[in-house]
Amino acid sequence: MSGSFPMNGGDGIYSYTKNSEYQREALNTVKEMIDMAIAEKLDVKHLTSASRSIHLADLGCSVGPNTFIAMQNVIAAMEKKYYAQSLPSEKLEFQAFFNDHISNDFNTLFASLPVDRQYFGVGVPGSFHDRLFPSLSLHFVHSSYALHWLSKVPKKLLDKNSPTWNKGKIHYTGASDEVMKAYAAQFESDMENFLDARAKEIVVGGMMVLTIQSLPDDVDQSKTPSGVMFKFVEAGLMDMVNAGIIDEPQVDMFNLPIYSVSTKEMTRLIESNGSFSIEKIELTDSSLKDGPINAQAVIMHVRAGMEEVIVKHFGRDIVDELFERVSKKCMEDIHLLESSNMKAQLFIVLKRI
Amino acid sequence: MSGSFPMNGGDGIYSYTKNSEYQREALNTVKEMIDMAIAEKLDVKHLTSASRSIHLADLGCSVGPNTFIAMQNVIAAMEKKYYAQSLPSEKLEFQAFFNDHISNDFNTLFASLPVDRQYFGVGVPGSFHDRLFPSLSLHFVHSSYALHWLSKVPKKLLDKNSPTWNKGKIHYTGASDEVMKAYAAQFESDMENFLDARAKEIVVGGMMVLTIQSLPDDVDQSKTPSGVMFKFVEAGLMDMVNAGIIDEPQVDMFNLPIYSVSTKEMTRLIESNGSFSIEKIELTDSSLKDGPINAQAVIMHVRAGMEEVIVKHFGRDIVDELFERVSKKCMEDIHLLESSNMKAQLFIVLKRI
Repeated sequence: MSGSFPMNGGDGIYSYTKNSEYQREALNTVKEMIDMAIAEKLDVKHLTSASRSIHLADLGCSVGPNTFIAMQNVIAAMEKKYYAQSLPSEKLEFQAFFNDHISNDFNTLFASLPVDRQYFGVGVPGSFHDRLFPSLSLHFVHSSYALHWLSKVPKKLLDKNSPTWNKGKIHYTGASDEVMKAYAAQFESDMENFLDARAKEIVVGGMMVLTIQSLPDDVDQSKTPSGVMFKFVEAGLMDMVNAGIIDEPQVDMFNLPIYSVSTKEMTRLIESNGSFSIEKIELTDSSLKDGPINAQAVIMHVRAGMEEVIVKHFGRDIVDELFERVSKKCMEDIHLLESSNMKAQLFIVLKRI
Repeated sequence: MSGSFPMNGGDGIYSYTKNSEYQREALNTVKEMIDMAIAEKLDVKHLTSASRSIHLADLGCSVGPNTFIAMQNVIAAMEKKYYAQSLPSEKLEFQAFFNDHISNDFNTLFASLPVDRQYFGVGVPGSFHDRLFPSLSLHFVHSSYALHWLSKVPKKLLDKNSPTWNKGKIHYTGASDEVMKAYAAQFESDMENFLDARAKEIVVGGMMVLTIQSLPDDVDQSKTPSGVMFKFVEAGLMDMVNAGIIDEPQVDMFNLPIYSVSTKEMTRLIESNGSFSIEKIELTDSSLKDGPINAQAVIMHVRAGMEEVIVKHFGRDIVDELFERVSKKCMEDIHLLESSNMKAQLFIVLKRI
């Protein structure tokens, strides 16, 4: 029930460090969009009128290297804008705050900080659903593939006597409307907390760029890449129940705390908060650009991101076998992934007003 | 030769977390002195005229819990001063930057952050001999029992053909004048870098409080607690050479990168930097207040602080045996420790001018 689900730490074969090219590809997809947002919408000169220090944060940074690439891209774009706006006598200074849960592997993150970095690097442990920074202390906030993680599994899902009891399922994909609504309500509450906290921390004129796993318009969750993968994992777990390796009630009590928001819902939540103007909100393609889908690589990515949440519930012993089974299912039914709707990534640019 | 010598991480039997009461006692000794310095010399109201966020740093924080106690004490004293100076309508906010080498166990540090803390906690990996923070971004800097660690062993000590070749010794305690001078020169260069970096980072009117292992006036290094302990460790290593467990050249090439500065030397270095006024510089007592010295506890502390630097040079295999031998020597010759000069702790309050 706790809200801390770190990516796999260290730099081993199943680590997030070694299995995050898809998320990196997502960064590449949105890099130009971020560059453009900064060039067109961010008044860097004004932000630095009081001090030439710019404070950036990456929320849900995991263990790198993607977070370093993201911060470096933002810094390059801000410098470009700054020098286009003025002939500064002094260089800008950047302080980059890398945030993730306390249980994130910050030792690995710090050990892999680029040696030639152009910023002062700092780690911030804690949930981004709470306050993390002093008031009015941030100029730019970035978060990529983190906000779809709920702060916790909605309690209702674990009540056997409720219509939201999610028996035999691990997600709202393919589940009842009640289950879906419980997930949506949790996401709404989490996003309210997130936006409230950031509204206090970001200076007026500051920018927030969010990339988030999303539900394309008029598409069923089961037809998205994540929906397909969740069903594979669910089927893998149920196979292990049938083989007597896992008890069925254990699966009944397990629910992935992940929600894919639609553009419409997200727009409503931001407008309802009222502290940010929406400069851009756009669905983008989350697929890798070249070649067919590599089932093995997909599984490695899913494992790097999901292993800890599964281990927390089922213990470490079942993990290898589970992912072997999931891998087999994925290879057999790769067409489900190939035919899924890849336009499942929401790119959002907000400005603190 | 690298300059990173973390305290023992984790929370096991030999961890710094479990073996840092002496350093904590040092904190208690100086707590009232810090309170008084803040009450008398720090204009908190002026520091918060532009923003009500106070930025604190603890440099060489290790893995806690001492660093949390130190930061909490400073915050309490600053709040007291602030409320004595004004009737503020809004509360102060504190952001505490916990700094240590990249190889420090930040995961343990973050996991033990007090749940009820009154500040935003942040980790800053890197050497405090370099820049760590943006210009003019700190209001208060604290460092306890860290600055006596040199950034590296002076190169000269490893040159067989030089008069500074430190054969059969692991420190300048009991060594030649040339060896002592090489250590002093390294400390001077390190302190210049430290003061230069802090001068850029601390706002005018900001305060820096340093507690540092020191050499009392007119006392030989061999008569200080650390000098006595270093000779025990040296003797333990030479015993292992004689027993054929360690090669003698390995000991010849090993030198503890620790220097105990005198009040006079430290004063000269601060004055030569020129960016800080010395508000207080005073030798204090580093002994525990009650009862006789507990040799076993002393050894555990020395081990928590020194194990990594020894492991780096000699490998992990020899450590248990070495500290058993050192422990025996310490118990046999406990009078050397008991009769050593305990006034070996330098307390310094500086203000950025």
